[in-house]
Amino acid sequence: MPDDFAQPLSAADVSEYERNGLLLREKDILTEGEIQNLLAVIPEVLDTRGPEVVLERDGETVRSVYGVHRTFPAVRDLVVHPKLIGAVRQILGGDIYVHQSKINIKAAFSGDQWEWHQDYINWLRADGIPRPSLINVAIFLDEATEFNGPLMFIPGSQRMGLLPGADRAGMPASYEDAPSWVDTLTADEKFKVDRDTIRTLAEKDGLFSAKGGAGSALFFHSNILHASLPNISPFDRKVLILVYNLVDNAPGDVDTPRPDFLAERSPVALVPRNGEEVTHE
Amino acid sequence: MPDDFAQPLSAADVSEYERNGLLLREKDILTEGEIQNLLAVIPEVLDTRGPEVVLERDGETVRSVYGVHRTFPAVRDLVVHPKLIGAVRQILGGDIYVHQSKINIKAAFSGDQWEWHQDYINWLRADGIPRPSLINVAIFLDEATEFNGPLMFIPGSQRMGLLPGADRAGMPASYEDAPSWVDTLTADEKFKVDRDTIRTLAEKDGLFSAKGGAGSALFFHSNILHASLPNISPFDRKVLILVYNLVDNAPGDVDTPRPDFLAERSPVALVPRNGEEVTHE
Repeated sequence: MPDDFAQPLSAADVSEYERNGLLLREKDILTEGEIQNLLAVIPEVLDTRGPEVVLERDGETVRSVYGVHRTFPAVRDLVVHPKLIGAVRQILGGDIYVHQSKINIKAAFSGDQWEWHQDYINWLRADGIPRPSLINVAIFLDEATEFNGPLMFIPGSQRMGLLPGADRAGMPASYEDAPSWVDTLTADEKFKVDRDTIRTLAEKDGLFSAKGGAGSALFFHSNILHASLPNISPFDRKVLILVYNLVDNAPGDVDTPRPDFLAERSPVALVPRNGEEVTHE
Repeated sequence: MPDDFAQPLSAADVSEYERNGLLLREKDILTEGEIQNLLAVIPEVLDTRGPEVVLERDGETVRSVYGVHRTFPAVRDLVVHPKLIGAVRQILGGDIYVHQSKINIKAAFSGDQWEWHQDYINWLRADGIPRPSLINVAIFLDEATEFNGPLMFIPGSQRMGLLPGADRAGMPASYEDAPSWVDTLTADEKFKVDRDTIRTLAEKDGLFSAKGGAGSALFFHSNILHASLPNISPFDRKVLILVYNLVDNAPGDVDTPRPDFLAERSPVALVPRNGEEVTHE
């Protein structure tokens, strides 16, 4: 019953996503109140301790907190936001669930880079997800500018499938004693895409950086080549990332399944929440 | 006889420089032929070996080559370009010489950051230069974009004088065995300006990044707070920097004078070259 779902994207939006592998919507997905609800939980997110917290190479600054849609009611409610579910269903065309969520902090003065990478290779290898039909929805929690390490992309690169490259040997520096699943979560990517490939794609299609105010929603494909620079500015660049996947593209068998804060192995189709905007005291 | 010198800057340009501590001129200082002359020597610059070459932390990629106006005829000719001498004299108001020159490579995929810093503190401490009346003239050797680590500034910060901060202890990591003068030339600044100060200035006056095509000329003050990000794009961002100083602001006595490829200790007033554009085979 697709008519039950909101359809916030135009046909042109969906075409743009299919062509470029990304779509940036600055102000029309979330209301100001919904953004404020999210921002209100940030202090608690930053106080999280446990294996779902990944630190930067400096061993002090919080880089990412995973599984936030399981932990924080404001994020859990956002996951079933009618416009988000509607938009993702418009692109993927079926029942969806959230495979992974995280808040990347990209802290002022300290937030480190994310090297050029495609996301899907990690979901394929670590979680046994059969097809690259996953969508990242990045909700900006601060204004993203050219100065604070915005997400940058090579538009259209998702159409190339898995790009050639090679694995880094061993664990990333500064994380030698961390659990094996940290291997793909640091500034030093596990799978390094060939530089000649990156150059060829960038010369052909250029680079795009996703800049916009807090509350902007950026949809991007699990195979689009992307990266972000360190943040040496005095301004944080926090982002919430929800990874939606098709229920019929659920994880398969793998030797050592990842913790549930990194990978949902029991998908249930999401139903949009009804009614008024949810508020949290 | 100031009338003998070209005056390429307007009164408004000079005011802008005094207010912001920087002035970007995109296309009207150098001709296309002059830019090509410079670009032609880059392969030779990259082949330079010796103490005037500083490598990145990776120990492989060339970060900077110093003293290029002594080594390469195309740079030596540029130093006495009538428009450059004229512009710098308009700002400084007296006889000038080149205290230092360098080409910063900021190589594709590998060029590292320059942390927030002011230049003058190093020229004061290492060379005994009495006053901050030095001007950096940065000549872009590639297009500088938001993606390849452009120079970024806090406009107006030069009016604050030497900002509060503290020295890093010891030599920068990866350079433990390097000569002492390398201490101020790496991605890890010797003198670290207080983060609260940087934040306060940036909140007040904002950030500015210097973007423009190859051949652009950027004038900036020796006390302006600036930085640049690593270059993880597939495009180089090379820049030639000429540091002009007033002859009557020459280095004073210091315990251990730096090599002459880092600091000119016997200034002679520059005279603009005459006549036609110089070409090199």
